[in-house]
Amino acid sequence: MDRAKLLTAVREKQPLVHHLTNWVTIYDCAQLVKSLGASPVMAHAPEEAAEMASIASALVLNIGTLTTDFIESMKLAASAANVRGVPVVLDACGAGATPYRDRMVVSLIESVRIDIIKGNASEIARVAGESVKTRGVDAGAVRGDLAGIAVELSGERNCVVVITGKEDIVAGGGALFRIGNGHEMMSRVVGTGCMAASAIGTFAGVCPEDLPGAAVEGLVCFEVAAELAVEEARGPGSFRELLFDKLASLTEGEVSSMRKVSR
Amino acid sequence: MDRAKLLTAVREKQPLVHHLTNWVTIYDCAQLVKSLGASPVMAHAPEEAAEMASIASALVLNIGTLTTDFIESMKLAASAANVRGVPVVLDACGAGATPYRDRMVVSLIESVRIDIIKGNASEIARVAGESVKTRGVDAGAVRGDLAGIAVELSGERNCVVVITGKEDIVAGGGALFRIGNGHEMMSRVVGTGCMAASAIGTFAGVCPEDLPGAAVEGLVCFEVAAELAVEEARGPGSFRELLFDKLASLTEGEVSSMRKVSR
Amino acid sequence: MDRAKLLTAVREKQPLVHHLTNWVTIYDCAQLVKSLGASPVMAHAPEEAAEMASIASALVLNIGTLTTDFIESMKLAASAANVRGVPVVLDACGAGATPYRDRMVVSLIESVRIDIIKGNASEIARVAGESVKTRGVDAGAVRGDLAGIAVELSGERNCVVVITGKEDIVAGGGALFRIGNGHEMMSRVVGTGCMAASAIGTFAGVCPEDLPGAAVEGLVCFEVAAELAVEEARGPGSFRELLFDKLASLTEGEVSSMRKVSR
Repeated sequence: MDRAKLLTAVREKQPLVHHLTNWVTIYDCAQLVKSLGASPVMAHAPEEAAEMASIASALVLNIGTLTTDFIESMKLAASAANVRGVPVVLDACGAGATPYRDRMVVSLIESVRIDIIKGNASEIARVAGESVKTRGVDAGAVRGDLAGIAVELSGERNCVVVITGKEDIVAGGGALFRIGNGHEMMSRVVGTGCMAASAIGTFAGVCPEDLPGAAVEGLVCFEVAAELAVEEARGPGSFRELLFDKLASLTEGEVSSMRKVSR
Repeated sequence: MDRAKLLTAVREKQPLVHHLTNWVTIYDCAQLVKSLGASPVMAHAPEEAAEMASIASALVLNIGTLTTDFIESMKLAASAANVRGVPVVLDACGAGATPYRDRMVVSLIESVRIDIIKGNASEIARVAGESVKTRGVDAGAVRGDLAGIAVELSGERNCVVVITGKEDIVAGGGALFRIGNGHEMMSRVVGTGCMAASAIGTFAGVCPEDLPGAAVEGLVCFEVAAELAVEEARGPGSFRELLFDKLASLTEGEVSSMRKVSR
Repeated sequence: MDRAKLLTAVREKQPLVHHLTNWVTIYDCAQLVKSLGASPVMAHAPEEAAEMASIASALVLNIGTLTTDFIESMKLAASAANVRGVPVVLDACGAGATPYRDRMVVSLIESVRIDIIKGNASEIARVAGESVKTRGVDAGAVRGDLAGIAVELSGERNCVVVITGKEDIVAGGGALFRIGNGHEMMSRVVGTGCMAASAIGTFAGVCPEDLPGAAVEGLVCFEVAAELAVEEARGPGSFRELLFDKLASLTEGEVSSMRKVSR
């Protein structure tokens, strides 16, 4: 599918995006999907997580407020998604903050097929086996080449790897993309990282045949809307509100004129 | 009680509205109640759900992110509410999306007295036994006469039935009401359906002797505030903020001049 | 540390503030911390609650939507915080509403060291053993001298006691402070009480050696920002948004010129 047309495809196909996510930003993830014109659903009961995943177009897993039972529901949902070919996005939220998170992420990755792993620098570095520390859910310092870490993890796990930050990195299918969109304000608002994963999942839901492309376009649209929101925002409160407004009114023209993607 | 005075009654009596609701829109349900001038509380622990329900003026149950344990707490709360004559509202959120949801809704309806069942077209049709599909938590297509389905379910379950949509239908006490208020924007914002149930519960808390009337007035006030919010909104983000502002400043005059209710 | 410089210290040190809090206002607590320039994290799994607490600068416990398992995780987190000398703040949200809440609060206070107990009038009076009733999570009437109750509880439990209301009372270290900042609008917005506890925790994270001072300054900064937000707010929705904006742009000058603290 023409990548430049993915935003329109999201609005026309209105993919159902199933989430097993954290309790802090669950509203923001749902409204992000809704603002893009798609349909969010959150259902974590083990009795239905799999069934909901199999009627969905994409599944987004976020371990921000994980528990062991919750991870088990994620496995049930992801296994069902795997069977149906529904793309699975994992936000490794907080990986590197505690050994428990690291164990749960590894357990997830080795139990089910994760199509796209997304995190900040220290989260992804930790998933890749580096000895780094994540400060709660905020990125810690990472030595060395982030792009190299993304490419290696992508090859090792045969999935798309997304590292969000001042510059976002998307590695997958042998290709490497760098995205220069976004704004520092996003780091001062809770949930922008989680919403980025939901945006990626929403685009993956209409473009399962090109997941690196879906990840890039989902991030670009989200971050272009964020740049438009920052222009009018007076702080993190008004930014959050404007972000949902701008996502809903975002045009292909705005995206194509503002996109900063390099290979 | 004079239906036109219910909004004033809510602000004067400030009913305590207990919720066992979903984790996506729990803030919105609480702020909806607070903006109307009433007092929300959310407490789901089985050790206290019943006690909290018995000191409340109304109980709102919403199965959006249900689990089996959570449904058990709902039964404890509703049983206590039933004993005290506290009106119980059930938002059949997502009924028709998975067999598990359908089983849990039936289990609730058959274990405790539900005074008002509210949902979108496919959720209520599913509760009424129709073979329809709900798309996550968004309404699916329903063949046939919605009003007929509402009236039949109302008689069969001896409760008020509310179907929200472009036109809302309220069936109860042998009467049928159609509400033309609201705006398409509401379908682009997460939580408007859940808030509608909380509005109905809040009004039921001051008018338990006329639940169909309370459901109609709660919906009308909520949707008139939404119409006022849309006039100034630039999208779903600003709409949500304005909705809470307009609910707090809503006057009986605005409601009576804008209400669109037919029998 | 110079109390007047605590806001600057928060922004420079960016303390990690760990929360085990309620599901209604969890976003607001996180964004409050983020808007102040600090770093929030929420993690309640028993396998990691303690570890997260030991890498944090402060721990905030809020029982708003408590369950027995959740209280157990709070004990694990608080015990680890106690060992590391990480300040622990308890928001006795809803104490006095049900016997279960009262039992859980006592169980917490007697199992771990709580450094700062915060609540509204009836919540704190209940913790102090008075026979009062809290209306869900809204303050009920309390006879007698609130300051006396705070001072007595502070001495009895050897901790700082904070009573929020039209006038806030902070008792600790043999001192008593009265804070006149804030605005009635705060009582019409869900989560302001919870955010007050998070503000106290954030300031305690950079000033563990003077917890009464941290509690006072945290409250003053939060309530001065609220006063600034009210000036532009049109209701509870816009107030919430403006509160996060004003917290992010708050200056020491605004705080020192608007602070109303008496001993």
